[in-house]
Amino acid sequence: MKMIHTADWHLGKRLNGHSFLEDQRHVLKQFVDAMEEEQPDVIVIAGDIYDTAHPNKSVVTLFEETIQQLNLKMHIPIVMINGNHDSKERLSYGASWFNNSQLFIRTTLASFFEPILFEDVALYTLPFFTVSEAREYLEEQVESYEEAVKKFVQRVQSQLDVTKKNVLVGHFTLNGAPKSDSERDLTIGTIEAVSPKYLEGFDSVLLGHIHHPFALDYDHIFYSGSLLQYSFSEVNQAKGYRVIEWHADGMQQTFKRFVPQYELEVVEGTYEDVVNGRFERKSDNSYFHFKLREMHHVTEPMQKLKQLYPNTLALTPEVFVASVSTEQTPHIKQLQPMTIINQFYEMHTDTSLSDIQQAYLETLMTEQREGN
Amino acid sequence: MKMIHTADWHLGKRLNGHSFLEDQRHVLKQFVDAMEEEQPDVIVIAGDIYDTAHPNKSVVTLFEETIQQLNLKMHIPIVMINGNHDSKERLSYGASWFNNSQLFIRTTLASFFEPILFEDVALYTLPFFTVSEAREYLEEQVESYEEAVKKFVQRVQSQLDVTKKNVLVGHFTLNGAPKSDSERDLTIGTIEAVSPKYLEGFDSVLLGHIHHPFALDYDHIFYSGSLLQYSFSEVNQAKGYRVIEWHADGMQQTFKRFVPQYELEVVEGTYEDVVNGRFERKSDNSYFHFKLREMHHVTEPMQKLKQLYPNTLALTPEVFVASVSTEQTPHIKQLQPMTIINQFYEMHTDTSLSDIQQAYLETLMTEQREGN
Repeated sequence: MKMIHTADWHLGKRLNGHSFLEDQRHVLKQFVDAMEEEQPDVIVIAGDIYDTAHPNKSVVTLFEETIQQLNLKMHIPIVMINGNHDSKERLSYGASWFNNSQLFIRTTLASFFEPILFEDVALYTLPFFTVSEAREYLEEQVESYEEAVKKFVQRVQSQLDVTKKNVLVGHFTLNGAPKSDSERDLTIGTIEAVSPKYLEGFDSVLLGHIHHPFALDYDHIFYSGSLLQYSFSEVNQAKGYRVIEWHADGMQQTFKRFVPQYELEVVEGTYEDVVNGRFERKSDNSYFHFKLREMHHVTEPMQKLKQLYPNTLALTPEVFVASVSTEQTPHIKQLQPMTIINQFYEMHTDTSLSDIQQAYLETLMTEQREGN
Repeated sequence: MKMIHTADWHLGKRLNGHSFLEDQRHVLKQFVDAMEEEQPDVIVIAGDIYDTAHPNKSVVTLFEETIQQLNLKMHIPIVMINGNHDSKERLSYGASWFNNSQLFIRTTLASFFEPILFEDVALYTLPFFTVSEAREYLEEQVESYEEAVKKFVQRVQSQLDVTKKNVLVGHFTLNGAPKSDSERDLTIGTIEAVSPKYLEGFDSVLLGHIHHPFALDYDHIFYSGSLLQYSFSEVNQAKGYRVIEWHADGMQQTFKRFVPQYELEVVEGTYEDVVNGRFERKSDNSYFHFKLREMHHVTEPMQKLKQLYPNTLALTPEVFVASVSTEQTPHIKQLQPMTIINQFYEMHTDTSLSDIQQAYLETLMTEQREGN
């Protein structure tokens, strides 16, 4: 039994105005070609297929063509769940018809209790949900994402067939996984990370959400990582897919890398060196984040840099970074979005947000995240 | 062989701010129930399934649930094409999978040359297209919608199997069909109506676009009409679906009516009579267009009318109508959109639109119509 584990395609993702669509097409072609060679028994896509709840035409077409190739032409079964970036409704449109060709798009909490069976493996799909959705589905009090996952796993325990390999497919943060800039918070105002101890009973756990494929150090719990480097905090991070094979004597896993069209690169140096090409780089077309010294005399540095390196996406004058980065930036990154808004409001108005204002903002953020 | 002919569902349609979604749900339930009784061999939906290229979640869900019921639960084959209101990409998403259960969503011009076969009937699907798409596909000069249809039919003639009943499914205006206010122009700046003489060779032609089910007087060419009355120019117009049966001795057609939740009604009278309920109506919840006399003394008539008749959608003071309607309004209705814009611009600026301005507006209108 050979399974492929991938996730976080984020089709349609943009970074500083740049669309990654052509890069995504390039790498998905590699993926399809690789699948032709691998001939897996099933491909698992663990959420965040799209980057937004409203992907545009060309993004949807890329997804449809890719899945069509894999599922209809190559006859590979596919199991996918929605992530926090996907619209459940949009992703699952047509799902009842897709089942006929073993394309399983799972977006409901009820689907967790209807495993998909492959020979000696049972796949339990836990699509991304909100805490309030879990509360409504389970019909009991649930305070956090962790508590919800725990309760779901508890309820399914008695159902697990121990003569099979039971695999959980989910989309959430596991305790200990370091985050980069491109994963969006799953929940607001609640403890979101889940302890691995609540996942007992499963022979393997295939996750989406964290973009680093080696974020965890377990022999049976994995993130596949994202399709591409989607933020400068992911520079030099390997991107690819994972092959998981079940043999008589146990499980074996291998990570296989993609070769992206262009890479993200962070370049530090002086403005003068960079405009004269005196710096190391993989390609002039790399997605550059320049962090440059000695540029206070330059009037339109970004314009000049884009002329020379068309995929330049970010520019930070080093003097600025030195003055604020060490204290302010890391601090802000650890805060909940509501706390940041609150602090900003207090700084500018000398009063705090009222309960009504807070509740309204939370509703807005929930709606935005859930794609309404 | 029993075929059902329907079209112009316009799911998501709004009139003066009112959403028809619940009315559409109501009537589609009747349709599904009717299909349970009819047990047809195929349902043909001749375009304009959605009202916009970007239908929202609940609209898409209504469509999916309806089709799921008919196709997956009741196992009725369905053939549909896009109309000028539909986005080809959005409508045909998943089409390759749907074919497995005999749900045929046809959106390409190439599909015209691959008829769908049912026993003794061959269905030729000609989805809505623009003249420039036809030109590109046919690789020859095409000036009008009529010329395009003519060329498509000519090319398919030799392929027609005369031992079968050949049926054309299309979405365009046929010469002689009277239009109402709710069909949007198919093309801008070109002659859009098609002469029936170019449709020879087909035993039957099932069309979408015109909302009146008796717009044509032929024994083998039909509009099904729209799902509901979508403009006040369609008041009292029958809405339903058409049953077409092929017997050994020929074809038989029957039109079956829907019973809408609420109807559109135009009410003429004095303001005083209406607010005192002294007028004939089918229900207080009808969608009213009031054309009222003696209301110059009333300050907020619309507010008062909506209080009494919550579905009031339009109000015209009769004095206004009398002064402009007979000369101006019918004249404007016969003009092309570009001509109307031009006249408006000239009236306000005393200069004409430049060529560049005109070209830009035409691009905008084409894009808007094609749902980009």
